[in-house]
Amino acid sequence: MMRYSVVDHNRAAIGVFDSGVGGLTVVRALQKQLPLEKIIYFGDTARVPYGVKSPETITGYAGQITRFLLGKNVKMLIVACNTMSAVAYDSIALISPVPVLDVISAGADAAARITRTKRVGVIGTPATIQSDAYPRAIRGRDPEISVFSKACPLLVPLVEEGWLDHPATRLIVREYLAPVLVNSIDTLVLGCTHYPLLEPVLRQEAGPEVMLVDSATSVAEKTALLLQEKGLQTPLSEPAAASFYVTDAPLRFQKTAETFLGRPLDHLEIVKW
Amino acid sequence: MMRYSVVDHNRAAIGVFDSGVGGLTVVRALQKQLPLEKIIYFGDTARVPYGVKSPETITGYAGQITRFLLGKNVKMLIVACNTMSAVAYDSIALISPVPVLDVISAGADAAARITRTKRVGVIGTPATIQSDAYPRAIRGRDPEISVFSKACPLLVPLVEEGWLDHPATRLIVREYLAPVLVNSIDTLVLGCTHYPLLEPVLRQEAGPEVMLVDSATSVAEKTALLLQEKGLQTPLSEPAAASFYVTDAPLRFQKTAETFLGRPLDHLEIVKW
Repeated sequence: MMRYSVVDHNRAAIGVFDSGVGGLTVVRALQKQLPLEKIIYFGDTARVPYGVKSPETITGYAGQITRFLLGKNVKMLIVACNTMSAVAYDSIALISPVPVLDVISAGADAAARITRTKRVGVIGTPATIQSDAYPRAIRGRDPEISVFSKACPLLVPLVEEGWLDHPATRLIVREYLAPVLVNSIDTLVLGCTHYPLLEPVLRQEAGPEVMLVDSATSVAEKTALLLQEKGLQTPLSEPAAASFYVTDAPLRFQKTAETFLGRPLDHLEIVKW
Repeated sequence: MMRYSVVDHNRAAIGVFDSGVGGLTVVRALQKQLPLEKIIYFGDTARVPYGVKSPETITGYAGQITRFLLGKNVKMLIVACNTMSAVAYDSIALISPVPVLDVISAGADAAARITRTKRVGVIGTPATIQSDAYPRAIRGRDPEISVFSKACPLLVPLVEEGWLDHPATRLIVREYLAPVLVNSIDTLVLGCTHYPLLEPVLRQEAGPEVMLVDSATSVAEKTALLLQEKGLQTPLSEPAAASFYVTDAPLRFQKTAETFLGRPLDHLEIVKW
């Protein structure tokens, strides 16, 4: 086993991984919250989307990406994909010698902290909702909370089409939210990393009574706390670069990434498996 | 090399392959047109969708599926995936000793035959439209035809959500068709195997002046002709069963397949690669 001095280890990057581009909202939140920390992002764009695949397949892919990032000597890992968090978190944590955070735990923490009426809504992809991971995580923090979930398969394609403020998007969001809002929730968890880009329309359709929990922002806050608690902050004082690794179609990724992040990519590389 | 008698070869199945469920509209059209012919369907559900992947990746996957179906001794192959037809047809035909038909050639044949004004519209996934395969194929049949294309990334997710007649679907279809209809087309090619399920709303929004070409029906008609020309029809006189092979999540596939086909599946098997 290789050894690192504390300073070297603190200079190491945060590894963030996702099935595609969605986790870039986590990168964006990290860059805002922790601009000095180096980030290595892995997007499995050749095999996206994970949401329609079986748990065995997803766990296999997640292990492969975890080993890739550990090979880059990251100081911690963030599972920025809700599907992987729901299905494969335990198996990732099992093989990782560095701390692992995930968007579901972070979103569940925030929801349990914020709700007053103890009535929480969760929206996400079919795979995330079917996994029941958010309700379990939220009730694990406070068993008195009632959770109302709704799968919203059209929202990711709408974000990827860039129809963030289209009348059809509004109609679709309204239809998806109706069965959740009818339960008088006071908190709505955006249980998919694409959804922060729909925040304005979600906020309008959910109404002023409902607080939105964005799991990308939640996991970035939790990361800042973890680095502080474990004394893992970088000693560097210059804004750090991020490196991006994808398994396919880097040009398309680059275009989407620059839209998500609002700035050009520092370093993009294709990994062939 | 193994040898087969003519009768054995004629009893062999038609191999149909797709990246997921879309090609089932081709199976449906074949079962209607050629109920006595056995079908073996391969859906690469673990790696769907192909539309966002690079040509190299798609060609590699297509070769793998072709070899699988040839291993089942099919008497012909149908590429029921527009993305694979656009990107990998030549490389499939190169390795196949049996005839290969594809949805793009079939759709282009029908469009060139039907149009009177020589102004044809094509709708499809981003990958199919960016490949320019339909315009090339249509102009290859008649260089005087003008082709107007439009990528419609939201239509596949709408079909998979089952929103075949939703107000949002109508809004989205109207927006996608507007820049195509403005060119006074008289023929519209549904360049994606999911789209036949949206035929009623597409027909209404396109208006009565526009003929729809459904490439699933077109390829089934072309298959009937090819079997006849080559003397490859089955000698059997009982309606034949179809076998389905998928690379992931067979339960989800089964549910969707039964919706697409309107009847239960005879035989479904998962293939792990």
